[in-house]
Amino acid sequence: MTDQELIDNIRVIEDFPIPGIHFQDITTLLNNPACLQELGDRLYERYKNLGVTKVVGLEARGFILGGVLASRLGAGFIPIRKKGKLPGETFSETYSLEYGTDTIEIHTGTISSDDVVLIHDDLYATGGTMAAATRLIAKFSPKAIYRNCLIELTACPRHPDAEGLEVDSLLKIDVD
Amino acid sequence: MTDQELIDNIRVIEDFPIPGIHFQDITTLLNNPACLQELGDRLYERYKNLGVTKVVGLEARGFILGGVLASRLGAGFIPIRKKGKLPGETFSETYSLEYGTDTIEIHTGTISSDDVVLIHDDLYATGGTMAAATRLIAKFSPKAIYRNCLIELTACPRHPDAEGLEVDSLLKIDVD
Repeated sequence: MTDQELIDNIRVIEDFPIPGIHFQDITTLLNNPACLQELGDRLYERYKNLGVTKVVGLEARGFILGGVLASRLGAGFIPIRKKGKLPGETFSETYSLEYGTDTIEIHTGTISSDDVVLIHDDLYATGGTMAAATRLIAKFSPKAIYRNCLIELTACPRHPDAEGLEVDSLLKIDVD
Repeated sequence: MTDQELIDNIRVIEDFPIPGIHFQDITTLLNNPACLQELGDRLYERYKNLGVTKVVGLEARGFILGGVLASRLGAGFIPIRKKGKLPGETFSETYSLEYGTDTIEIHTGTISSDDVVLIHDDLYATGGTMAAATRLIAKFSPKAIYRNCLIELTACPRHPDAEGLEVDSLLKIDVD
């Protein structure tokens, strides 16, 4: 399956959640069994030889392929969630948005210095969330941190925190 | 791996999110690679011969094993989310909570009358959410609807809407 065939299964919804946003709706992609299979296969092929022991998925859409990949790799799965959603003791990181801030959290004690961690999210737009997730994971001093997203919006202006961040994407889309 | 070994990997957190709740924290279970593997295998074995074409996962924890199972079965994955989170046109269902109500939504056009649907959530407590999810899926008149949860709290009083609802659980825990 080509990148374009996968991209053709993404539905673009204008002005969601706010005016001016061309929302990339991946639910149509994941609802197509052949596409879901292809995405799982691509992720597995890309990471199978890197010794990944923990896959971290970002709430909420990052849980879907993050879970698939953890299961395929024989790794553990760890959620990063919005503030207040995780029941145990957490580390947290706050990052700036266009208006205001957002805070994400991870349970303490979830990663060791022997772990190789892959962070997965569905969308890489400004990169602010991925940068904050990286800071969260860095607190555990794991052996390595990889970053992956399903879709990278290549024309989106990057968050200052995301400067120099290397993120591997399955699909690149030339919009903001 | 026995049920008890899996249950031993669930962490109980008292008084989360409100006083009196013995919160079953599955993040410790999913973070254990052997447990995640066992859960994926059990789900696959249970549903592999039922012709499931769509796995519906309930936000947000139901996305994790829901995604794993959809991928293993070669089915599509469909999210049910809290009101306002899905970008496209939706069906919605409202159900009563102890105090107030909650509303969940699914995109229209996601399921056909030829589909065999499995609804998955992490927790079956009162059953109010699972009953509302069933009403959502029934709007599409699919060929069959199966319901599965990771954990069933067997001592939890059931929601009136959940009367007679058949739900298959991977693990039963005798608390409320």
